Amino acid sequence: MRLLVANANTTQAITELCADAARAVAAPGTQIVPATPRFGPAVIASRAENAIASHGVLTLLAEHAGQVDAVLLAVSHDTALEAARQLMPCPVVGMTEAACFAACLVGVRFGLVTFGGVETYRERIALHGLSSRLASLVGVDATPQETVRDPEGVARKVQEGIARAVAEGSDAVILGGAALAGMAPRLQPASPVPLLDGIAAGVKLLEMLVALKLPKPSAGSLKAPSGRESVGLDDALARMLRGGSG
Amino acid sequence: MRLLVANANTTQAITELCADAARAVAAPGTQIVPATPRFGPAVIASRAENAIASHGVLTLLAEHAGQVDAVLLAVSHDTALEAARQLMPCPVVGMTEAACFAACLVGVRFGLVTFGGVETYRERIALHGLSSRLASLVGVDATPQETVRDPEGVARKVQEGIARAVAEGSDAVILGGAALAGMAPRLQPASPVPLLDGIAAGVKLLEMLVALKLPKPSAGSLKAPSGRESVGLDDALARMLRGGSG
Amino acid sequence: MRLLVANANTTQAITELCADAARAVAAPGTQIVPATPRFGPAVIASRAENAIASHGVLTLLAEHAGQVDAVLLAVSHDTALEAARQLMPCPVVGMTEAACFAACLVGVRFGLVTFGGVETYRERIALHGLSSRLASLVGVDATPQETVRDPEGVARKVQEGIARAVAEGSDAVILGGAALAGMAPRLQPASPVPLLDGIAAGVKLLEMLVALKLPKPSAGSLKAPSGRESVGLDDALARMLRGGSG
Amino acid sequence: MRLLVANANTTQAITELCADAARAVAAPGTQIVPATPRFGPAVIASRAENAIASHGVLTLLAEHAGQVDAVLLAVSHDTALEAARQLMPCPVVGMTEAACFAACLVGVRFGLVTFGGVETYRERIALHGLSSRLASLVGVDATPQETVRDPEGVARKVQEGIARAVAEGSDAVILGGAALAGMAPRLQPASPVPLLDGIAAGVKLLEMLVALKLPKPSAGSLKAPSGRESVGLDDALARMLRGGSG
Amino acid sequence: MRLLVANANTTQAITELCADAARAVAAPGTQIVPATPRFGPAVIASRAENAIASHGVLTLLAEHAGQVDAVLLAVSHDTALEAARQLMPCPVVGMTEAACFAACLVGVRFGLVTFGGVETYRERIALHGLSSRLASLVGVDATPQETVRDPEGVARKVQEGIARAVAEGSDAVILGGAALAGMAPRLQPASPVPLLDGIAAGVKLLEMLVALKLPKPSAGSLKAPSGRESVGLDDALARMLRGGSG
Amino acid sequence: MRLLVANANTTQAITELCADAARAVAAPGTQIVPATPRFGPAVIASRAENAIASHGVLTLLAEHAGQVDAVLLAVSHDTALEAARQLMPCPVVGMTEAACFAACLVGVRFGLVTFGGVETYRERIALHGLSSRLASLVGVDATPQETVRDPEGVARKVQEGIARAVAEGSDAVILGGAALAGMAPRLQPASPVPLLDGIAAGVKLLEMLVALKLPKPSAGSLKAPSGRESVGLDDALARMLRGGSG
Repeated sequence: MRLLVANANTTQAITELCADAARAVAAPGTQIVPATPRFGPAVIASRAENAIASHGVLTLLAEHAGQVDAVLLAVSHDTALEAARQLMPCPVVGMTEAACFAACLVGVRFGLVTFGGVETYRERIALHGLSSRLASLVGVDATPQETVRDPEGVARKVQEGIARAVAEGSDAVILGGAALAGMAPRLQPASPVPLLDGIAAGVKLLEMLVALKLPKPSAGSLKAPSGRESVGLDDALARMLRGGSG
Repeated sequence: MRLLVANANTTQAITELCADAARAVAAPGTQIVPATPRFGPAVIASRAENAIASHGVLTLLAEHAGQVDAVLLAVSHDTALEAARQLMPCPVVGMTEAACFAACLVGVRFGLVTFGGVETYRERIALHGLSSRLASLVGVDATPQETVRDPEGVARKVQEGIARAVAEGSDAVILGGAALAGMAPRLQPASPVPLLDGIAAGVKLLEMLVALKLPKPSAGSLKAPSGRESVGLDDALARMLRGGSG
Repeated sequence: MRLLVANANTTQAITELCADAARAVAAPGTQIVPATPRFGPAVIASRAENAIASHGVLTLLAEHAGQVDAVLLAVSHDTALEAARQLMPCPVVGMTEAACFAACLVGVRFGLVTFGGVETYRERIALHGLSSRLASLVGVDATPQETVRDPEGVARKVQEGIARAVAEGSDAVILGGAALAGMAPRLQPASPVPLLDGIAAGVKLLEMLVALKLPKPSAGSLKAPSGRESVGLDDALARMLRGGSG
Repeated sequence: MRLLVANANTTQAITELCADAARAVAAPGTQIVPATPRFGPAVIASRAENAIASHGVLTLLAEHAGQVDAVLLAVSHDTALEAARQLMPCPVVGMTEAACFAACLVGVRFGLVTFGGVETYRERIALHGLSSRLASLVGVDATPQETVRDPEGVARKVQEGIARAVAEGSDAVILGGAALAGMAPRLQPASPVPLLDGIAAGVKLLEMLVALKLPKPSAGSLKAPSGRESVGLDDALARMLRGGSG
Repeated sequence: MRLLVANANTTQAITELCADAARAVAAPGTQIVPATPRFGPAVIASRAENAIASHGVLTLLAEHAGQVDAVLLAVSHDTALEAARQLMPCPVVGMTEAACFAACLVGVRFGLVTFGGVETYRERIALHGLSSRLASLVGVDATPQETVRDPEGVARKVQEGIARAVAEGSDAVILGGAALAGMAPRLQPASPVPLLDGIAAGVKLLEMLVALKLPKPSAGSLKAPSGRESVGLDDALARMLRGGSG
Repeated sequence: MRLLVANANTTQAITELCADAARAVAAPGTQIVPATPRFGPAVIASRAENAIASHGVLTLLAEHAGQVDAVLLAVSHDTALEAARQLMPCPVVGMTEAACFAACLVGVRFGLVTFGGVETYRERIALHGLSSRLASLVGVDATPQETVRDPEGVARKVQEGIARAVAEGSDAVILGGAALAGMAPRLQPASPVPLLDGIAAGVKLLEMLVALKLPKPSAGSLKAPSGRESVGLDDALARMLRGGSG
């Protein structure tokens, strides 16, 4: 199967980072196809950028529709997730969504540790319906840059964040955001509960969904659009709204 | 004050319809400025189109930033509402948001009657935190086309929808969606509870917010973006992400 | 329009304070009519006093029914709000309700800072259905008396409360209670998020509701009482329960 | 022990009805003391009347403070319940509250059948925190008058309401409102689930609370008022607000 | 009436402790019948032990079915509560359930103080539907052993826990768990809010339920099992599943 | 990997049915190990049987601990799920849990169709925190026996149930319970939305969890029991409670 690792940021380095993490857990038959939008924010760090990026990532997906068997949204905001799920003929999973659902399978309540602000995570988890499973949201005071400059110091801060999440009732902890993506294997040995990585969980959930061979719905709120007109959109995307393949 | 009536659909006729409705309730000093995105879906009728339209409407807003005193999102999905609120230096209100909050001021629980699907309304109302105030969601089986062909028949169906909403506990009823926009004044006399129109409520709420002279936040999740880089976005929008005015 | 600023406390000085705040934001055509109940608690500071005051404030409203176009309940507990809304032929808004709804229009989540206990605010916000929008409730350890004796010290404490609310995720902060009523303009310059004042918000929301010309419901839970008998109530109130005008 | 059966309506016949129901289940040592407010609505049937009645019933309670060991609010709206609990030195229970809590002890989810409107029951149950335990709210289309004219027909309608509540998932059914008060014993034999009567449950819960000898709190939101001034209230009530006994 | 105090642990000393506490509050006509399961965990302190104990306690109940008038589950986890309620022909109440419902009758929000972990209490309270009534969950860092070795020190820690619960908004505080069972009377004098003990509350709630003479449901989710086959269960339990008496 | 398909009923035919369904979707390297408890209810159809079965299924799991890599609870009630997750050193998933989480990945809201009562499903879904994702619960009026006698008629009824779930807002529908287990592939072609089968979803989720190599927690509410004493339990189970392997 071909699994699209679709970034919603336009920074290709992040795409590569996520694609590498995806390859590390992919089953032998799973081919990772990295993809980066041609337009949009370099790195999504605000509500405005996230909303803008919806268009870019859906344009990107439309270009791959019919040529991939599954889509992982490799962006911590699960940008345009439900829209992508409606648009695409194949399964779509978001990396934070994946981490949350995997966390629920190994913990009664879970925590999430990330760099900086936690509000959008709180909202995304509420949208997934999982607020009652959330024990702790910890924003570590560190920047991606600091990760390069002082990896030990940052690791220590994240480890403290994990400890706080456990103290607040977490049976499992999600490391949220691309900046923390590579850290799980390194921090796991010293952590008392399972650490979840959205890319890893997402790849495996998509392998599951493909294996289950669930059909595209022809009714309900995720039925593919058809007969919809538009102005100024890329060909592939406009075609999909009209009901053609991408 | 200049009040931007920003459509998120690219169909100018809808913009004009909404602008007319806005003018009908605007205070003497309020100038209605209609605006339609240059790209995006003709009429938003799916999750995918709504996510795509986020970019178009934010691009549109960026072009008017600094030149308007308030923004009404004239689209029933409140497309990109929180993002617009973060991006813009002035107050932003969505038409369904406006109708819901106005309904809460005249009813303990409210209903919403619209054409077709109700799921996205349910989700939007949940996002606004008002699920416990929602008594009834009624999807009338009619199309905008039918409104032209058989206005009497459609009005009868909507009136039945209102009656059902009242029977299910609504003290006030929102007429949702652009297709129902003009109907409130016509249906009100035969309706036992107040009928709410999002455009009218939105204009008045924005006049209120402008009058209150609340400052743009310099902290929190709605602080304006700054120092954010992007690729391939229109100048005005890219400039705002970098922290300049639009 | 005539806007009744109805206190539910019997302390006229508070009524005057609120009426002044109302005049400061009222539109040119809005005439502020202050009113104080003839019986009831001097200052509501407990559940018992709030319940007792319901009668006094409704008696007061009945005396003005038909002679005013809108009613602002100038009491932080939104005393008898839904009852007043049912009883009166015109729009009624509570000052804390108004502040909450205005806060939701400028923030994703909001905080509330007040003197002393916060439990009744928590309950009132839950009743409004807005618990998921509430980020922080801060009870400042100060008294109204202290405000007179050491205004600087109190302002510092409130500013610290605002800072804590922002740190806990508030995009906007309500200053709750009459004792804090005048402080918003003074504290706003040093505050990183908008400060909401219930009197100001309430006046503008009522101007909106009057402008929208929504009819009194003839069905639902807010239909005016009629044919109801009573014992020992003031004439105007008894008459309204029987279905006459106040 | 002396148990005050305090009506919040001014109709003495209802008080007597409730007192009789209370005597029927009271333990040998429990003396039922019926009491009716001297002023207020004849029969509470609206939000406005309920708010007005708060004053009357608290005035009534203040007159009995110190002379009774427990208070049952014999009114289906649990009028002024939390206020009464704060004011009085002894336990206070509302009849609908009592029925709900008793229902939770014999059913996983419960239903409520009443005459007429159900909205205020929905709100009261939400206030008690029990919305997730509520399976069904059924408003029977009948009037208290009809109960006298056609008792068989009304009983049949109530029985149908019970059947519907059971079909909707109720393990127990509350008969709500004074008009249904006497019906439980008569309808129970033909009902497949336990029928709860608020007066009966309330008397027994109060006997429990008196037996547990729990102290009056000296902290928290139910601490008795003290040092509170007022205008125009009855002596006993004004005295209690000042911190004296009633 | 005969009231079964059914432990779900196999440690008879705990049963005796609970039975003593039950006798201390039982009405003259209430005979306390202590019972301990013949198999299962010595002391339930984990999810696994609690699930295992369900079988033991239901086996125990089946042996007493028909010979007792009420059952108190004398275990802080309310082990197998709903199952027991379905199985038994008489009322069944859990000790934490009892404490929570009693707390709701004397406080708007309540707290719970216990030794060690609080997560299972949080879940149990959510199951009872009372999350919105819970103000504070405090896990005191002490062990049952410490209670014997340093009773003064432990009492001090619990008192601090109570103070914290009150500061966080509790109007009443539950002392959770068998280890704290005997402490309420001793700690009450120095505590500013009522302290609730699950055994005491449970005995009185059961006396209430027996007095109300509510019938066993013949429909709904608590209808007794009948016609159910099983393998390897004790005779009495197997007989009850088939529909016979225990 | 060895995947234990653990029934909680003692009816081996159901175990075999589930094991067959598991084999149909298992990856090549996944060996299905069916297992049936030695004691307990033949078929769980009540709260009482479910609580009793907790012991049987945990005893069964203990016997396999260390010899299997994953456990699927092949019982629609997810019997003893959290307890099993705590007890076992390997991942554990319940079949209804699996279906719910898979449904959330392909639908915004989902429905569940089953034979007979729906209350325990409602409760289980609430426990998983997914109530806001549940659009519809449909209890089809049919029995397992009918499935054998009139498979066409039953299939028609289930199809009607699916149609109702879709009409009520479901984007995906779970076929709940063992009796419906085999039906998904047969009914899918005529169904407009994906049909979810808990066994299939569970096998794939467990393959994912094993692939993710998450460690057993050494802290939190799912830390394995140790040092726990017990009476009369099977050796393997008692050993695990003491902290040994099963």
